[in-house]
Amino acid sequence: MHGPGDVRVEQRDDPEITVPTDAVIRLAATCVCGSDLWPYRGIEPVRRPSPMGHEYAGIVEEAGREVRSVKPGDFVIGSFMASDGTCEICLAGYQSRCANVEPVGANGAQAEYLRVPLADGTLAATRGQPDPALIPSLLAASDVLGTGWFGAFAADVRPGKTVAVVGDGAVGLLAVLAARELGAERIIAMSRHQARQKLAREFGATDIVTERGDDGVARVKEMTGGYGAHSVIEAVGTQESMMQAIRSTRPGGHVGYVGVAHGVELPGQELFFAEVHLLGGPAPVRRFLPDLISRIEDRSIDPGKVFDLALPLDQAADGYRAMDERRAIKTLLQP
Amino acid sequence: MHGPGDVRVEQRDDPEITVPTDAVIRLAATCVCGSDLWPYRGIEPVRRPSPMGHEYAGIVEEAGREVRSVKPGDFVIGSFMASDGTCEICLAGYQSRCANVEPVGANGAQAEYLRVPLADGTLAATRGQPDPALIPSLLAASDVLGTGWFGAFAADVRPGKTVAVVGDGAVGLLAVLAARELGAERIIAMSRHQARQKLAREFGATDIVTERGDDGVARVKEMTGGYGAHSVIEAVGTQESMMQAIRSTRPGGHVGYVGVAHGVELPGQELFFAEVHLLGGPAPVRRFLPDLISRIEDRSIDPGKVFDLALPLDQAADGYRAMDERRAIKTLLQP
Repeated sequence: MHGPGDVRVEQRDDPEITVPTDAVIRLAATCVCGSDLWPYRGIEPVRRPSPMGHEYAGIVEEAGREVRSVKPGDFVIGSFMASDGTCEICLAGYQSRCANVEPVGANGAQAEYLRVPLADGTLAATRGQPDPALIPSLLAASDVLGTGWFGAFAADVRPGKTVAVVGDGAVGLLAVLAARELGAERIIAMSRHQARQKLAREFGATDIVTERGDDGVARVKEMTGGYGAHSVIEAVGTQESMMQAIRSTRPGGHVGYVGVAHGVELPGQELFFAEVHLLGGPAPVRRFLPDLISRIEDRSIDPGKVFDLALPLDQAADGYRAMDERRAIKTLLQP
Repeated sequence: MHGPGDVRVEQRDDPEITVPTDAVIRLAATCVCGSDLWPYRGIEPVRRPSPMGHEYAGIVEEAGREVRSVKPGDFVIGSFMASDGTCEICLAGYQSRCANVEPVGANGAQAEYLRVPLADGTLAATRGQPDPALIPSLLAASDVLGTGWFGAFAADVRPGKTVAVVGDGAVGLLAVLAARELGAERIIAMSRHQARQKLAREFGATDIVTERGDDGVARVKEMTGGYGAHSVIEAVGTQESMMQAIRSTRPGGHVGYVGVAHGVELPGQELFFAEVHLLGGPAPVRRFLPDLISRIEDRSIDPGKVFDLALPLDQAADGYRAMDERRAIKTLLQP
């Protein structure tokens, strides 16, 4: 990305092992993330041309000499945050905030090859070479599925609960799927976009609310005996979406927020009297990967449906444009 | 309270049963709360002369005809928030946000008699008439102990964990006691006031940190292998104390905040990347009362020690002044 709206596909040197805990992956597929649109839209600064992409699935090409858990030829998926897997934070399941964390995206996963640091603590392998039809779903596990899953986990989704999801991007839609898998009784998807409503229903939404902001809050309260939802997942990252999420949650309920916060300020007094649990941040995807991979291999979930546009890697700029204009939910890029 | 700094003891009509779910209590003791200092100091407006006080323990004088769980002559303690005990929020343990909540303090507990609404859902009785020596501790359960306990609960204090407490008022000190009772391995009290440090140690603090703000954060990190505490209890309610609490917590850790927020704005992006659990608000004291009363009756805890000044009710103004000037941690008033 050279600047807002300026995505170019360029020839760069292939990545190499730089420290013995690295692995280099040959990508089977990569994609454009909703968070890539923040700099694309100029909301985050682009200070210099930057390699983009942080979602990846593919085959280990080379592994550093200290890598024990994966070997060349393995099909692997990894988190967008590289983690050592051994510090107290990783052991507690918050690998995205590992004491030695490194953002994988700095290397640019929208590419043919990717260097992944801390391979043992970051990558998870499939049982064998996956059916090519599963690759979009496995790729989704790398971020959007893992992030939606964490949102549902952070919102304490449980059997019998009423869940609301604010945001109908790929993460929001996969949070719906996660809520269904975690046993929610009622899942309210907040969306005013027909194709996304349809996918939300396929993923398990029982209700659609098209109102936003305070009107959306009023609808959710009306649907929940005046109390609000038990669990609300926020998957946008704006002031409006955060306040909508907090206000849609009943006292004692849980908000899981996974939309990267932009310009958000939470009013302390309102939050105090709301008395809701809050947990959010960059999803510790690695915690969930083995479970998510199994569910995909068993064909019990099909998160790859969020990819409604697939393009060759060299048409990446078109993929960004389609998402920016909301013509596509999520663009898969084939190297 | 007629205005900031202006507390007067006046003759008012005795309260009466107004609806059949009310009870009227003859107070054995009442007290001044840290939160009463907000209007006393002019930080909260005093729009008209207001009865003060929301902490109470005493004997049921009269019970409305629908009251089932307590009867005249019972010694009772109640929460500062009256709750029906039957709505979904109460049943989930968040009685302070009951669908039919009423603030008991509106009636003024710094008095001889107090009308308590929703008596069945609000009051808890002792086993029999308590030893008078236990009355300060039973009174503490009404708010400061219950609030400190909720802070520890909200901060997910568990055996083996490292806990930090921001704030050395009565609530902070009793949060230390709660953390000890809940099995914390290490309890860091943040205090620069010698008498309060001493009481913190008596209540179970293993370490004292005198630094504040970012220096306090640095000390806690240094003491916890760079990670931060597992659980941090915030018991002040200012921007500085909230940020100190959040920054002292390790990723994936828990902040329980019970200081009533004044002028607090939480920066969304910092909160996102902090990745800590947040839970706070007015403590659902009623949830904890039966357990707290038992511990006091069994003399396994002695929270009444936070009262380091006891005055007759008609000297209430002196009691406020002593707390405002930090000469007293907490003032007990004897009707």
